[in-house]
Order: sequence, then C-alpha cells, then structure tokens
Amino acid sequence: MPTDENRHYHYKEENQKILITEHAYEPEFEAKSGALFCQSNGYLGVRGAAALPTLYGSRGTSVAGYYHRAFPGQPKELVSGPDIAGLRIRFRRRELSPDSPSLKGFERSFCPQDAQLTSSMVFEPGEKVRLLVEERRFASFADPHLFCQYIRIVCREGSGVPLFVSAVLDAGVTNGGVCHFSEVSGSVKDRRVMQLRAVPGTGAGEDPEQAQGLPAWMVTSRTFWSCPERQADQAQSVFALKGRSLRETREYCLEAGDELELVRFTRVETDGLTEPVCEDTGGGETGLMSEEKAGESLSPLRRYLEAFGQHEECLRRLRMQGEIRIAGASTEERTVLSLAQYHLLAMVPWGRSDCSVAAKALTGEGYKGHVFWDNELFIQPYLVLFYPEQAKATLRYRCDQLDDAVRKAAAFGYDGALFPWESAADGEEQTPPTAAINIHTGKANPVWSALKEHHISADVGYAVLQYFDFTGDAEFLMKYGLEILLEVSLFWASRAVWSGQNKRYEILDVIGPDEYTEHIDNNAYTNYMAHYVMNRTLQLLEESEAWGEAERILQKRHEDPHAALLKIRSVRDGLYLPGPESNGIIPQDDTFLSKKPLENIEYYREAPVRQVVLQDYSRDQVVDMQVLKQADLVMLFSLFPDLFDRETVRKNLAFYADRTVHDSSLSYCMHACAFAQTGDMDSAEAFFRRSLSIDLNENPFESADGIHAAAMGGMLISILFGFAGLHVRGQRLCASPHLPERWKRVECTPRFRGEAVPLTIVNEEETWQR
Amino acid sequence: MPTDENRHYHYKEENQKILITEHAYEPEFEAKSGALFCQSNGYLGVRGAAALPTLYGSRGTSVAGYYHRAFPGQPKELVSGPDIAGLRIRFRRRELSPDSPSLKGFERSFCPQDAQLTSSMVFEPGEKVRLLVEERRFASFADPHLFCQYIRIVCREGSGVPLFVSAVLDAGVTNGGVCHFSEVSGSVKDRRVMQLRAVPGTGAGEDPEQAQGLPAWMVTSRTFWSCPERQADQAQSVFALKGRSLRETREYCLEAGDELELVRFTRVETDGLTEPVCEDTGGGETGLMSEEKAGESLSPLRRYLEAFGQHEECLRRLRMQGEIRIAGASTEERTVLSLAQYHLLAMVPWGRSDCSVAAKALTGEGYKGHVFWDNELFIQPYLVLFYPEQAKATLRYRCDQLDDAVRKAAAFGYDGALFPWESAADGEEQTPPTAAINIHTGKANPVWSALKEHHISADVGYAVLQYFDFTGDAEFLMKYGLEILLEVSLFWASRAVWSGQNKRYEILDVIGPDEYTEHIDNNAYTNYMAHYVMNRTLQLLEESEAWGEAERILQKRHEDPHAALLKIRSVRDGLYLPGPESNGIIPQDDTFLSKKPLENIEYYREAPVRQVVLQDYSRDQVVDMQVLKQADLVMLFSLFPDLFDRETVRKNLAFYADRTVHDSSLSYCMHACAFAQTGDMDSAEAFFRRSLSIDLNENPFESADGIHAAAMGGMLISILFGFAGLHVRGQRLCASPHLPERWKRVECTPRFRGEAVPLTIVNEEETWQR
Repeated sequence: MPTDENRHYHYKEENQKILITEHAYEPEFEAKSGALFCQSNGYLGVRGAAALPTLYGSRGTSVAGYYHRAFPGQPKELVSGPDIAGLRIRFRRRELSPDSPSLKGFERSFCPQDAQLTSSMVFEPGEKVRLLVEERRFASFADPHLFCQYIRIVCREGSGVPLFVSAVLDAGVTNGGVCHFSEVSGSVKDRRVMQLRAVPGTGAGEDPEQAQGLPAWMVTSRTFWSCPERQADQAQSVFALKGRSLRETREYCLEAGDELELVRFTRVETDGLTEPVCEDTGGGETGLMSEEKAGESLSPLRRYLEAFGQHEECLRRLRMQGEIRIAGASTEERTVLSLAQYHLLAMVPWGRSDCSVAAKALTGEGYKGHVFWDNELFIQPYLVLFYPEQAKATLRYRCDQLDDAVRKAAAFGYDGALFPWESAADGEEQTPPTAAINIHTGKANPVWSALKEHHISADVGYAVLQYFDFTGDAEFLMKYGLEILLEVSLFWASRAVWSGQNKRYEILDVIGPDEYTEHIDNNAYTNYMAHYVMNRTLQLLEESEAWGEAERILQKRHEDPHAALLKIRSVRDGLYLPGPESNGIIPQDDTFLSKKPLENIEYYREAPVRQVVLQDYSRDQVVDMQVLKQADLVMLFSLFPDLFDRETVRKNLAFYADRTVHDSSLSYCMHACAFAQTGDMDSAEAFFRRSLSIDLNENPFESADGIHAAAMGGMLISILFGFAGLHVRGQRLCASPHLPERWKRVECTPRFRGEAVPLTIVNEEETWQR
Repeated sequence: MPTDENRHYHYKEENQKILITEHAYEPEFEAKSGALFCQSNGYLGVRGAAALPTLYGSRGTSVAGYYHRAFPGQPKELVSGPDIAGLRIRFRRRELSPDSPSLKGFERSFCPQDAQLTSSMVFEPGEKVRLLVEERRFASFADPHLFCQYIRIVCREGSGVPLFVSAVLDAGVTNGGVCHFSEVSGSVKDRRVMQLRAVPGTGAGEDPEQAQGLPAWMVTSRTFWSCPERQADQAQSVFALKGRSLRETREYCLEAGDELELVRFTRVETDGLTEPVCEDTGGGETGLMSEEKAGESLSPLRRYLEAFGQHEECLRRLRMQGEIRIAGASTEERTVLSLAQYHLLAMVPWGRSDCSVAAKALTGEGYKGHVFWDNELFIQPYLVLFYPEQAKATLRYRCDQLDDAVRKAAAFGYDGALFPWESAADGEEQTPPTAAINIHTGKANPVWSALKEHHISADVGYAVLQYFDFTGDAEFLMKYGLEILLEVSLFWASRAVWSGQNKRYEILDVIGPDEYTEHIDNNAYTNYMAHYVMNRTLQLLEESEAWGEAERILQKRHEDPHAALLKIRSVRDGLYLPGPESNGIIPQDDTFLSKKPLENIEYYREAPVRQVVLQDYSRDQVVDMQVLKQADLVMLFSLFPDLFDRETVRKNLAFYADRTVHDSSLSYCMHACAFAQTGDMDSAEAFFRRSLSIDLNENPFESADGIHAAAMGGMLISILFGFAGLHVRGQRLCASPHLPERWKRVECTPRFRGEAVPLTIVNEEETWQR
C-alpha cells in the first residue's frame, strides 16, 4: 500500500480499534468500497455503496445459496436482490448525492472488528444552507436476517430549510442488466412497516409452480424517526410504490441546529435459507421492529445501539474464537489480517450445509457467485482450525452433491465422483461452456476447466482428510467423509491409464492449478493429490478395519465394490509420481520443461492489470511457453512441506517462482506459505506483502465485482501453515515456525480433536500440543 | 410557462428557427428532457438523456412495435433496448459527468424543426484543466435505422491532459428493472465496426424457438475520429465487451487548443420492422459507415453534416406537408406547436400497418408503451388531414386485429368486435387486470377499462369514417373499412339491451371517457358514438348498394349475416340518445345528475400533481360524485359540433366544465376545441393555454416517463377542428373559424379527396374548398 497522502484508503489503529478510512469521495472507488466494506454476516451481503444515490457503485443484497437461472441454457447466478440501504434526501427539487457539487465533505470508515460502516457527509445544497448527514450500518451477526442503519441529519446552517427524507427499498436491482424477479409487490402494514416481496422468475419450459424450488424474497423494513419537537406534529410518513421501489418519506423544515434522526431495521427472509449464528442471543426475538416491546420512547440512536450491542457481542465471541494475534505486526498487517478475518466470518454460511462459499463471497457479482475449489483449499483450512463444526457443515455441501458428481464422471466415461468445477447451490456444473466471445474473431474459446480441471475432486478429498486429521471426527468420517473419499478415489482409479511403455499409471490430458498450461499429462500437483487421497483412504480403511463399510458404501452406486477397491489399490500402487530430474527440478508436467520461457516476464508480472500476457499472445502460444498463471507445484509444496527434502523444495520454488506471473489472486499467498516453510524469509515476506494488497489496494477496478475470498483465506493460511508452520504429526498438533523477524509471536487458539488449544508460537522453536 | 428567469426550459425564435434550451444542468430534469427531446423518427426512439453518465435520466432505445412479454402472465411492454448514445470521457481516473463538481457550464438545445439536439458542456476536471465537450445528434428521417452523433472535445486550458474517450453501446438497459433480452453478444468487425446483438427471452412454457415471434436487435456502430496531427500515430482504438456493454476507446494527451472530433453512426435493425420514410432519398444506401464510399479524408463534421443534410431535407418535406402556420401566434404557441408537430412526425410508424402509436410514443416506458383510443381520436385526425396514406396504414392495425376483437367480444357474450382497451403489436388485450396494489390495504382495485370502457370500438369506427369522409377512399372502405364498421356496429347491436319499461335500446354498465364515473348506464358519449357508427354504416351500405358485400363480409365470422344487419338496423332505430332535460342539461349518464358535486373542486383542479382527489376520497366515493376526470360530453360536442343547437352546447359546456378536474392530459385540448367551436373565445383560449403546458412545463416529474402523445395531437386538433373549425359538409371541406383575436390567420394545406388544398383561414368567414 502506498504511503503517500494521495492514496484513497487510509488505515489507523487506535486503542486496538482498526479503521479503514476514505477521506474523499471518488466515484470510481464506489464499487470497490461496496465490496470491501460489504455488510455480510454469512447469510446476507449488503453492498457498502453510499446510501444516497451515486453515479457508480454496486447496489443490492445477496443471500448465501440463493442462486437462480434467469434464462434457459445459462448458468445459475447468485442473485443481486433488492437494495435495502437506500436513502434519499431532497432539498427543494434537488436530491443530495455525493456526486453533486454540493458535497463539501466526505468521510467513510469501516471497522473490520465490529463490522460497522460509518460515514459522514457535509452538503451545501443552497446558499447559506449547510447539512451534515451521518450514517452507521451493520448486518447483524446476532440475527442474520437483520440489517440496521442509523442516520442523523444536522442542519448546521440555514433557516426554513425544506427537506424530504426517504427510506427506500428497491427491487429494481439487476445482475448486470439481468433481472431475476418476475414479480415484485410492495405493501405497508399499519402505516409503519414496509414490505417488498420479490418472486423469482421461471425459465422457458419450466413449470412456473416449481420455479427452481426457490422461495420469494420478503424484505420487511421499519423506520423510527425523531425530529425537533416543533415538527413532531406534522411529521407523518407518506408511503409510495413506484415500479419496483417502495419508499417512506417525511417532510421537514429545519432551522440551524435542528437534528433529524432515523433508525431503520430491515429483515430479509428467504424462507428457511438460514440458521442463527449465535443460538443463545435470541437476536431474532428482541422484536426491534415492534414498539410494543422496545418502547416508543426509545430514541433512534438507543434503538440502533441496542441492536448493535447484540450484534457486536455475537461477532466478538465468534471473532475471538478464530483470532490470530501477531505481536510485532505492522499496522498494515494488522489491518489486512483483521479485514480478512471479518470477511471470512462474513462469507461463511453459518450452520448451513446446503451451500458453500463463493469466490467473491457475498460481496459482488464476479464469477456469478459460483463456488470453486477456492473453498476447500483456501477457506476451509481456517475453518478446520477454528470453527470445525462449520468446516464439517460445509463439507456436507460436497457430500450432498455426490450423486451429481458421479453422474458428471459417468458422462465423461469415468467411475466415482467428479465434482463440478463451478457450482451454485446444487451439484450441477455451472461453468460456462465457452469464455466470452472474442469480439474481433467472433470465436469463443472453450472453457476447459469443467472438462479438464479435475483436481477439484482430489481437492475435496484433501479437505475431508484435513478435517479428519485436525478434528479426529470419526463419526463424520464414517457417516459422510468416507463416501466422498471412496468416490473420489474411485474416480482417480478410473481416470488414470496404464502406460505399457512406462509401466505405470498416468493421468493424461488435465489442467492443473496453473491455468496457463492446458491439456497436459501427469501434472505433478494432480498426480500427487490423487495419490494422496487414494492412499490415505486405503490407509484409513486398513486402520479402522472398515473394508466392509467401504463395500457397503460403494454398493450404493457401483456393481462390484470389491473390484473397485482393488482397482484403487492397484492405481495407488502404480501411479506415476514425478520426482526431481537430474538437475533437481520436478517437472510440472510431462512437457513443461521442454518449453521456452516467456521473455520479459517481469513486464507482465508488474503490469498494472492482470493477464496482459493474453493480450500479447494467443492462449495457444501461452500454453506453449514456460509461464505459470499461479502456484502449481508451489501449491503442492505448501500443502505437503515434507514431500521432498528441503533442498529440492527450495530449488523448485526458485525455479517455478521465476516462471510465474501471478495472474491469479490465489498465487502470492501460496508462495508466501511455501517459502516460509523452507525458511526463505526474504521471499516469504515479499510474497506475503504482495498478498496483503490483493483487495485493499489503490486500483479502483480491482475487487469492484467482489472481494477475492480465497486470497483472504490464503493470506491466513500463509500465516498459520506457512509462517507458524502448523501441522499434524501423528496424533499431535505441532508448529514449525519461521516467523518474520519483526513478529515477536503469533497467538491463536485452534481447536484440535475437540479441544481448544491456546498456542503462543515464537520463532525458532517447535511448539507441540501439551 | 413561467416568465421568470429561474425557469428550466427557455425558448426563442430567431430567423424562424425555434430553440428550446436548458441553460443549466438540473439532474431532476434529465428524465423529462430525455422524453421531450427524444430523438425519434417513427421507427427508433433514442432518449435525450446526456451522452455522459448521469445520476438520473432515462436511457435506452425503443423500436415501434417491438413489444415483448418478459414473464408469463404479464402484459407485453415496449422494450427499452440498448442505449446507443453513451459516451465516456475519463481524465486521470475520473469520468466526466454533468453531475460532478467539475461541470462549469452547460447548455442543451433542441430544435423541433430539424429535430437536432445540441449540447455544450465545460468541465474543469483538474487544476488548470478546462475542457469543452460539444455534442450534436439526430435520429434520421432519411434512414429510419440510423442514429448519428457528432462530438467535439476542445482542450481550452491544460498541458499534457490525458483523456480516454469511449463510444459505448450498452444493452444493460432494462424496463424499470425488467430485462427483456436473454442473451447479448458483442463483436467488432475489422477493428472498426461494433455490433451488439440482443436476443429476446422466452417466458415459461414457451417454445424458445418461437420466442414471441420477435427478431433479435442488431445494433451496428461505426465511429470516425480525428485528433491533432501529432497524436494521429498513436490513436488506435481498443474495443472491449464487459457484461452487456461494448465500447471503443481511444487515449489522447491534449495540449491547450487541441481538438478531438468524432462522428458516430449507429444503425438499429430489428429485421423487417420498418419501412423507409422518404422513398426517394435512398438514405440507407449512402453507406455512411463505409469509408470506401464516403472517402477516408472526410472530417467527422463533414460526415455528420452530410448525413444531417439528408435527414433534414426529408424531415423538412415531411414537415411542410403537415405544417400549421399561425400568423400572430406567440413565441410560446409557435414553440409548442412546433414541438407537437415534431413529435407527431416522430411517433408515427411511417409506412407500417403492423403497429400503432403508443400513449407515450417512443419516448418513455409509461403505460408500458401500449396503444389506447388516444391514437384514433387524438393522433389520427392530424394524419387524416395531412398524411392520409399513413392514416390508412394505421387503420390497418385495427383491421388486422379484428379476429382478436371478435374473440374478445365473444368472451363477454357479445357479437362483433370489441377492441382491446390497451394493445401492443397484436390484438391481444394488454390492460393489466388490476391496478397497482394499494400498499396499505393490500388490495388491488380491478382495472375496469378492459372490461367496461367499450367506447374504444365506437372510436375505431369513428376513425374509419373520418378517414373516409376526408379522403373519399372507397377502395379502402370496401377492402378494410367496411369490415371494421360492420363488426363494430354488430358489437353495439348486441351490446345494447331492450328496455321494456322505457321502450328503447339502452347501453348499460359502461365507462365513458370520464374514468371517474364507472359502471354507468347510457353514457351519452358512448350511446351517440355507437349510434353514429351504426347509422353511418347503414347509410353507406344504402348509398353504395353494398348490402351483398356486407353480408359477404359478415359471413366470415357470423352464421346469419342478414339477421345481423337487421339487428343493427333495429338497434340503430331504437337506441336511446339522451337529450337535454328540462333545465337544458344533457345527462352524462342515467345517474350523473342525481349525484352531489365534489366540494372545493378548484383545489383539486389547481393541485400541483394530478389525481389528488383519489388521495382524499376512495374510488367508490369519487364515482358517487359529480366530478369528471376529463372531457366526456365535451368530447362528444368537440367531435360533433352541430349535434345540438348552440345554446344547448354552451349551457352544457359550462355545466360540465364546472365539474371537471382535468386529471387527464386529454381534457384541456378537447375543452379548447369545443369552446372554440361555440365561439366562447375566453374559455377556449384559457383551455388552449393550459393545453400548451401539458409537456413543456416546469414540473420535472411530468412527462418523465414519456411525452403525452395524445395531448400533442389534441392540441393540433383544437387548432384545426376547434379554432379553424375544419369539417366536411357534403362533399366539401369547409371551415367555420373562431380564431383568437391575436391570430391573424391560420395556414395549412390539408389533403382532401386526393388533392392538396392550400387554406388560409381568417376570422369570421367561412372558408370553402374551391
């Protein structure tokens, strides 16, 4: 992050409170800030764009798992639902907007610890008229359906200032122009409570009654107002529905010194698609919206603070459970770490197993809200360590997809389970078959990920094993995990082919994590991961003498379970696992080492935007060069630091890092992790520094369509599994730390085998579970 | 229109050129200006919103007759297609927008004569950086597919000013949040020509192959750039498709005095949905987009002016044909008259009979772009007088709906043709069954228009007869008109019921033009109009001895044509036609005169917004009062000035005008017309003045969803049929003028029975066709 004063995002830490602040309104940053400061709680995601109308910026609300196909043949996407944060303030016939010349001051701050977004704006909309508009907001961790806003308008200067103030619910929001609701209706109860109901549409040929099994959105909003005594009589709300937008408006006439306050509670319900985060707070039962319980006399601020208090307490407890404290970390490191921890807590569908974490979490429309391997390898590990119950629930998401995954494998002629490369709430493959059409040639490149990026199945198996290793949860293993492991192992057993010439099983024609290399044979990452899952599965069966159980599970979908197990064993035993060549380099795949390196790789690595190499070369040319989009073997080293001797790892890290452009946000963190594990601290710290600015940077276009969820998880992984070197050895949790010198210690309290284990990790010392 | 300098819209006339000008940018007026200054040519309608991004304002393009149903069970609506006028100018990382504080000057003018919209903006986006951005645009009357923009950017101050300039095609436009395109793809030909293809979606249960029979939109755009010599080398276009938006961008670095120019030709094709306006200009063949024909050396301005010249010549000829010149008219009158004539020419689907004119023409989304009786009674008369060929074509629209109209009548248990109250491109009823739900009660009032506002069928019959009377087009009458007249007559014959008590046919339970009075018996307007159509139809058959032909036509859809004719005759002879009661007042319906007048009607009439009475009273209460929304009997007088003696007409005009709030834009013009016909000039002029400001007024919310097409037509009607008193007597066109004193004369050249008849109408003198 640049240190000059011209930067857009500033951060500071005072009394242990971290604030990320924008001191000026810059229209181009609205979408990015909307994602970075998205108010999420695992169920809801409300974009952080300004409440007042703005030229740019993304608006709307996402609900975890609420995916809908707008038109036949198109992928399902995470629906951008109604904007529930809208505010309108009209002075004479002009509406206040941060974009207008009347804006004279702007400050917006996000605290990643209490997840509150606060803003303050000064407007001079007329001569000798000066207004202060302040806002606070949060999406509640006490009641995941609840979103709260407090607004205060102060007349700093002026006399007889006429203001219309409206609280708005707007279902006219689309996913980049695509609308998912066929019907929107609005109602007002008791001239107090606004309700907006949005019904998802059905595609051609679909039964309207069964509209993809999706419930309607029901958005309910209640605003409490307070105003100067003198105005109290005439302060009556007028409600209006126009198109898909419902609003409550009050008219005031202010004198200098007058204050208006309003607090707005909005509940989003999508019928069953959530579970409470904190079971014991009863957040939903406090009846914030009903004055009978809360008392009419409460001021808007009191009402807000009461709700905020409940939220903060829940979030605090949840956060403490997974907090990573680094003594000696810089303010930047603390800020980004804190932001990452907030987003991790905000992206996880607490208590639910019917959906998983999208690549952009709930913060934007990027990747259509789809779930990738990002979840299992970049987000899940943090959950396994600190929130194992949730890690288990999210693994169920894959377990529930097994039938679909077996069908997908069968469609390609394989046995076992091939998970979708991109998925929505179910097991259906959602990867678009082709990339965007090349506008010049009219041709669309096929997207090979769904067809060839098969390591996803090994990744899911790895995640099951990681969960088991840290939790020792044998019950889950037998009930769900083993089924995944067996189907995944069977997939790899059928996916591998016997090479008569080489006398070994090989895995041909795949794409590894490095997506700049397509259609390759024996991608080291893929082969090792497949082998690991098959091997551990067979070992687990051996150790627990669960062969009969395994056959019973396989029998569900396969005719000859015994033969299937034999096949797995045979492939496990004969699978080619590429080792170092004579020069010590492990080939990323069979042909990689014979290719020519990309010239001038520094240029592409330092380019202000990603994937510039694809502008200068065709994809075929890129595939034919030694250039990695992202960590591939490095990823493998980071997952299995002891797979090779340290010298080999070091040599290969240097070799492959030299050939990587880091055109994926998943790359820096894995490099930081792997380099830290080998004790190469200069490189580790350099990559770690880069990983800090994946989202919180000065490029207004990065993250504009959502944060990089996996990069945030990966940053935590690089601390926990890289610098702190946490791992399981035998039955014990242990650490092989290589902390940066500045860091005095890393403290956290992972759960291990049912126990909370407070750890203080200091440098150059192995820390064992006591 | 207010005369103070604070008003938003100014107008002036210099050297016979009329300009309507905005001297300041006011965000709230963007939508209204977008409609008022909509660039239409009968096929295309491109909203007049600023090319640069704005906070408010409507964007997008309509194509006449392009209606689509987004979701099953919902009415079809006129699709808001891609915005083809978008421009982006980025200085450093900030985009120029009229909403931003960097705007230092703004002027936008529309000339209703040549239909060119010009704007000029000054920006100071950085210190010592001053930019002038000028734009001109038009939708071509020479080639109805063509939209042209010329943009000039002058660096007034600054050095090394980096600018990114983009021409944008954006299909992310929705109808108030509802998206009609399932698929949008973009391509670039020869790194020059951008194409956007937008495919309409299919509803649930519909066959995707037959998607409502609608073609895709194909938008093709070519931009020619010129820049300072020094920059010519590096001026290369970069094209990018993001989501549904395609853009061409060039990067420049300007010094003070530098000028950039670009001209942009955009063609919208929807496969067959148009005909050329001027057949002899060959507008489409000039190949403006191909440099081979036009020559690479032409400057952008030259290219623009060439296209503009062709457009202007076509429009001039078309306009001359229907021009109404009023010597002595005020500048305001000239301005509004000119604006109305522009919009009339711009709303008519030239050469086409497959669609008609929507209530908001092509200028906005109001009334979902549906066609009402507005076309036949408010727009058609102007066409009949000056563009009879087009009047004939538009009558075909109804003719082609006869099967649907007969089906609709049958569904209600009637014979003959009941036309839909609201329609799209076909004969299907599009009126929503209920009004918007009352947000407080949760109840939706049924919309009775489609069920009870049956006068539409009489109105269509009237339009056929008016066309025939002015043109004498017997061929059309026999081929198409008679069929409409017979089916409409038969409808009324079956709609009327015999009252044994009153010994007459009565028409019960209807809604007349006054929609504040529902479910009434014997609405005078309806009964007289029904009688007129039946009577004239029978007379025409008598005169032309076409009884056999009539039976042949009726035989198509009815078993006993002879009985049908007898039935028409019998109802014609026995239908109740309410006359003046003892006090001289003709009852609007059977119960109207027994109701109590609305108290304090002045208050509602002068309210700043319409339909306030429905806020203070329930609809049932309003129905039970003597209060008219709009001209009802007054409308009848205006159509048939000689139906009653002048004294009776005067008395009734006064009586009903006293009870009318004019909550419909169709009211003032008809009052002006009827009062002028009786020579009550004070009242006539007062209503005429009001009719001038239906669209061109200072209320930013009026017309924001589209102009009032019928009010514009009605204003012309009040001049032609009211003040000038044009009518047909026997075989002759004649005028009974009652001009305002200020007006020296009215000149125009209507067509009458195949001849152009130059008329100079002066006051107090009957003008006969020579």
